Amino acid sequence: MTGIVFTPIGTVRSPFHDPRDMPIQPVGARGVRETVELDPACAAGLKDLAGLSRIILLYRFHRSEGYALEVVPFLDRTPHGVFATRAPRRPNAIGLSVLRLVAVDGATLHVLDVDILDGTPVLDIKPYVPAFDA
Amino acid sequence: MTGIVFTPIGTVRSPFHDPRDMPIQPVGARGVRETVELDPACAAGLKDLAGLSRIILLYRFHRSEGYALEVVPFLDRTPHGVFATRAPRRPNAIGLSVLRLVAVDGATLHVLDVDILDGTPVLDIKPYVPAFDA
Repeated sequence: MTGIVFTPIGTVRSPFHDPRDMPIQPVGARGVRETVELDPACAAGLKDLAGLSRIILLYRFHRSEGYALEVVPFLDRTPHGVFATRAPRRPNAIGLSVLRLVAVDGATLHVLDVDILDGTPVLDIKPYVPAFDA
Repeated sequence: MTGIVFTPIGTVRSPFHDPRDMPIQPVGARGVRETVELDPACAAGLKDLAGLSRIILLYRFHRSEGYALEVVPFLDRTPHGVFATRAPRRPNAIGLSVLRLVAVDGATLHVLDVDILDGTPVLDIKPYVPAFDA
C-alpha cells in the first residue's frame, strides 16, 4: 500500500527528555504538567477547546525505531501481539494519550497527566467524548 | 515541519460506500458489523487481541480533502474549532473509533458499531483500556 504523509501540527514540551526518564505506568504521570505548542497557523482550530476537560492527543513516537509484532510488556514474561499493547515500537508509531486540559493560551495548551517525551511531534487533537470513547 | 510517512496496515470493509450513506450520529452505527482486513504480514501482531472486548482503530479519512480550521457541526449553527470536533476535514485526517471486537480470524477482525467507510486505510489498532482512556 502507498504511504500517507502527515505534517505535525505542533510539539509537546515536557520534563521527560529521555525514554528512560518516563513513568512506566500512566499513574506515574499523574499531575505532570506539560504544554502542547501548536503551530500558530492552526490556532483558529482551538476555538471552544477550552470548554473541554479532557482531550485526545495523537502524536508520533519520534524516538521509536523499527517495530516488533510481538512484545513482552513491563511486568510480564509472555509475548503479546503488538496491537494488544501500547508499545511505541509498532508498525505506524502513533501514540494516543487522553489528557486533562487545564488552559488554552493562544496556540499553547496546558495539560496534565502527560506521559509523553519532550519534542514529540503532535499529529491531531480531538475532543474526548465519553459517549463515544467509554 | 517535515512530513511523516505512514503505511496502512489494512483496510476496513463496511456497508458504507459513500459519505452520504454514513450514520450522522455514532448511535446510528450501533450493531453495524464490519471487518478490518489486516495485511497478513502483520497478523502476528494480533496475538491476544481476541481477549479484548473493545479496540481503538486509527485510520485515515481517505475521502476527505483539504481542511477547515472552523467547522459547523451537524445540528449546530455556530462554528467550532476543528480540534474541538470529530470532523474528517482536519489538518491530519486521522480518524479514531472505539469498536466492539467480535472475533479475530487470521488477519481479519470482525467488529461492531462501525461508522467507517468501506475502503478506509487502517493505520493502527490499540487495546481500549478504560483505566487509561476513560
